[in-house]
Amino acid sequence: MTRKIEGIAASSGIAIARAVVLNAETYVPVRSPAEEPEREVERFRAAVRQAQGEIERIRASVEEKLGAEKAAIFEGHLLILEDPDLIETVEGQIREEAVNAEYALHEVAQTFIEALGQLEDEALRERAADVRDVSGRILNALRGVQGGDLSQLAEECVVVASDLTPSDTAQLNLAVVRGFVTEIGSRTSHSAIMARSLDVPAIVGAGAGVRGIPAGAILVMDATEGVLLVDPSPEELAAYTEKKAQYDRRQAELRQWAKRASVSSDGHRVEIAANIGKLEDVQKALDNGAEAIGLFRTEFLYMGRSELPTEEEQFQSYKYVLEKMAGKPVVIRTLDIGGDKELPYLDLPKESNPFLGQRALRLCLERQDVFRAQLRALLRASRYGNLKIMFPMIAVLEELLEAKRILEEEKTQLVASGVEVSETIEVGMMIEVPSAAVSADLFAKEADFFSIGTNDLIQYTMAADRMNETVSYLYQPCHPSILRLIRHVIDAARAEGKWVGVCGEMAGDLTAIPLLLGLGLHEFSMSAGSILPARERIGSLSHGDWQSLSRQALSLRGHREVQSFVQQQLEGGIHA
Amino acid sequence: MTRKIEGIAASSGIAIARAVVLNAETYVPVRSPAEEPEREVERFRAAVRQAQGEIERIRASVEEKLGAEKAAIFEGHLLILEDPDLIETVEGQIREEAVNAEYALHEVAQTFIEALGQLEDEALRERAADVRDVSGRILNALRGVQGGDLSQLAEECVVVASDLTPSDTAQLNLAVVRGFVTEIGSRTSHSAIMARSLDVPAIVGAGAGVRGIPAGAILVMDATEGVLLVDPSPEELAAYTEKKAQYDRRQAELRQWAKRASVSSDGHRVEIAANIGKLEDVQKALDNGAEAIGLFRTEFLYMGRSELPTEEEQFQSYKYVLEKMAGKPVVIRTLDIGGDKELPYLDLPKESNPFLGQRALRLCLERQDVFRAQLRALLRASRYGNLKIMFPMIAVLEELLEAKRILEEEKTQLVASGVEVSETIEVGMMIEVPSAAVSADLFAKEADFFSIGTNDLIQYTMAADRMNETVSYLYQPCHPSILRLIRHVIDAARAEGKWVGVCGEMAGDLTAIPLLLGLGLHEFSMSAGSILPARERIGSLSHGDWQSLSRQALSLRGHREVQSFVQQQLEGGIHA
Repeated sequence: MTRKIEGIAASSGIAIARAVVLNAETYVPVRSPAEEPEREVERFRAAVRQAQGEIERIRASVEEKLGAEKAAIFEGHLLILEDPDLIETVEGQIREEAVNAEYALHEVAQTFIEALGQLEDEALRERAADVRDVSGRILNALRGVQGGDLSQLAEECVVVASDLTPSDTAQLNLAVVRGFVTEIGSRTSHSAIMARSLDVPAIVGAGAGVRGIPAGAILVMDATEGVLLVDPSPEELAAYTEKKAQYDRRQAELRQWAKRASVSSDGHRVEIAANIGKLEDVQKALDNGAEAIGLFRTEFLYMGRSELPTEEEQFQSYKYVLEKMAGKPVVIRTLDIGGDKELPYLDLPKESNPFLGQRALRLCLERQDVFRAQLRALLRASRYGNLKIMFPMIAVLEELLEAKRILEEEKTQLVASGVEVSETIEVGMMIEVPSAAVSADLFAKEADFFSIGTNDLIQYTMAADRMNETVSYLYQPCHPSILRLIRHVIDAARAEGKWVGVCGEMAGDLTAIPLLLGLGLHEFSMSAGSILPARERIGSLSHGDWQSLSRQALSLRGHREVQSFVQQQLEGGIHA
Repeated sequence: MTRKIEGIAASSGIAIARAVVLNAETYVPVRSPAEEPEREVERFRAAVRQAQGEIERIRASVEEKLGAEKAAIFEGHLLILEDPDLIETVEGQIREEAVNAEYALHEVAQTFIEALGQLEDEALRERAADVRDVSGRILNALRGVQGGDLSQLAEECVVVASDLTPSDTAQLNLAVVRGFVTEIGSRTSHSAIMARSLDVPAIVGAGAGVRGIPAGAILVMDATEGVLLVDPSPEELAAYTEKKAQYDRRQAELRQWAKRASVSSDGHRVEIAANIGKLEDVQKALDNGAEAIGLFRTEFLYMGRSELPTEEEQFQSYKYVLEKMAGKPVVIRTLDIGGDKELPYLDLPKESNPFLGQRALRLCLERQDVFRAQLRALLRASRYGNLKIMFPMIAVLEELLEAKRILEEEKTQLVASGVEVSETIEVGMMIEVPSAAVSADLFAKEADFFSIGTNDLIQYTMAADRMNETVSYLYQPCHPSILRLIRHVIDAARAEGKWVGVCGEMAGDLTAIPLLLGLGLHEFSMSAGSILPARERIGSLSHGDWQSLSRQALSLRGHREVQSFVQQQLEGGIHA
């Protein structure tokens, strides 16, 4: 029987492939009696061999990509697998207590982990984490679930998981992963954003039903509607194969918009830009006809490593993007760490509400060593293209002025030491804290441009964590409160002759686009995958009509009313 | 030598008394050799006896106040102290390993706690928490620090702690506690708010220096300036004794304002109300001349217990306050749980950003059993006074409409069953989510009144957790962004003929008061201790002048500029 699971369509597309089920971290084995303990011992040994094979493959791949030093940790993992203390104790316990291998392994590993954790020698204490990792891997092998290394997936598949961390998602082998489904998450959780940026179909927040999907099951994943079929019937399989073909044809149709300008039906021109999160994204942005990079998130340079990137590494990355964009604008945002993104090596204190904590520029003003290195790298790269520097998470004017002062200081020193620095760098800021939106007129005198980060602006304006499903109903981009703040920001910037972009999800939202166009937004920056439908939509809209329609929407009672209003107007043909 | 420690003056006053040092939870004993193990065993036994005495006292007091059932847990604690398994194992370890009692106790207790924690029987697993509690108490006795039960303090003292939970603060024996000092916290943390409501001098966020204060040290605590002197010299002691006398005289002077009306120098009348958090606060509010209760936080009914309060218990509390206020307005806020306030028995999921999570009305709309019981209790109590019901944490209009619908449903049912319900209950809402402030005009059509919760409104507008010290610089009540939102709320309410109050800390802030008066605020609700200085301040201000001055302040560049502007105007005598 087909099982149907519904979730949030987080990244569009249709996939038909077998399920690979990822390890859920919270798994704790239940004790059950083993009638034939020797068979459990055999299962255990097979799992150890499988883990050995996996670790050897990862070790080799890491050594090739990142060098022998980084691979050393996996040598340690292999040694643990050969440690008779661990292995023989588990086998002993299986035999003596006639219990299942999972339980015995978990018990013995816990004892090791606790004992190691209490030691005074730091290196030995760290081995506790290794034992946890290795025993988790054996446990996965015993359970037949796919663990840790997502780059090792070798066959076409849909990945099924409780959740995917940004690093999980980054590791996906796109040659074979056709999509992913997660139990938790929302349209704006990081895995969802990453999926759109990678152009991988994704359904998130599909609920506990996901836990029951067996590894290897055939899945039909319709991420245009957020529907997942487990073990579909032959009829369903045929229907979705056809739907997938239609979807692919529509994609081809959209491609014609890649080389056109972003102009409304009455000739009003805007700019459609791409948000990028790593160097590979630039090509995809260009392929989709991005006229600029509206948001270059620099966090990837800092994440998934054990120390800060050097100024030189950063310089090379910025130079690469600037050169590749060949004179088109590139807005680079300074480090936005904190919140849900952590850097273990910065050793930041744990916060009770990290989204309301010391993140982004707040942290950079405190950790000026980190900030200044990034600014120097940006300034040095500036002569290779059309650089605009953007500061995130500003709430009060003093923060902007201080950031600009530090930038000016670094620039003066670089120039004094003979480095060539562009004289036309624009310096702008994100508008994502409600205070900055409300006082945009004060900021417009000091910033060269604004880019409205609607994801965070909505989160803070609604006081609703966008990663928290119980309050995700409050993620309402078209709510009058949000539209009013956006209008105020655009009007305030216009009064000072400055331009405004939106670099949140909202910029690519087909219902929001008419409103943003009408309110006078200059730049729409979005995942590369959203550019073509957005350009098509803008081409169908009358800017003049939407100038007055968008203002009408501001006094409607709520999000639903605004959405219906836009839909009615679009269907009424006013956009034709 | 006097040691001077500076912190945040969280609740005004001056105290001179000995230090009582509270247990810091993170203490883990270090192993050190015992030259005379038998003396360690003796110390251990003495500490066990002390713990026994403490527990017996608590048991008796809890039995008297809350009944035998609630006291049963302490019987369990006494049994643990008699458990030879625990006691003899500790003594054995002290002797065999010749180690200090603290270390041996900690080690043995940990083993017990872990072993109990792994058992399948839930009742036995819960014993782990008891063993932790009891062993912590013995450890405190060994270290000579004051543990758990703050109601047992018997001599005049200043309490010194890393932090105080709301329940710690509520337990303070006010007959002897002259003040408290904490290492962490801010002016708006709960312990600080509680201190002002109890009228106990408090210095919070005084930093790591607090850890070095020895129990029994003489402390001079000047919570008018946030200065703490440890072991003051005779000269300092004399100077502060005089300062304390002056302070007391000024307090007496202020008392004359208790019976006056709240009227500006040019005859504009406002209302000064009190925020209360429990039944005892009502008397204090009346003593300080409160004209109303502007915020009755109902959380105290739900906290520090193991199950929901019954409808009858709630009814009695609401009736008590309404009767005691004898026809003066009483604004009762429905349950505001979640955020930093948890109710273990509701079993709410852990959230990554609880301040942006399912708190207050969001939770009540989900847990309608809890919500409806509270509404019924309120409706039943309504005929005993002038009740106004207020819903917290509303972001979008649908939430207000749904809450009103449920209230109406309960009212209809009660009336149908013959219960008398007042026909003049006003139903209003908090404005604390930026969205509600920005769209106040939409809400003003549906709410009978607004009360601006500035603590949370500032927190969300600045995207800065008010409990997080690293971003506490962003708690800026006088920032133009905040003032603009407040102006918009007041103007929107006025257009619909509704009244607006402020029930955050800002209402009692002497710098903010002129601005709020000028913007047209109707009601100022604050801790009872702030009422008299606030009324004195209002009496000195010209409403007409501040109408235009407050509008000037809205276009200043930041918080500092606004504060200086207000100070200059006040000093310039315009308020005379």
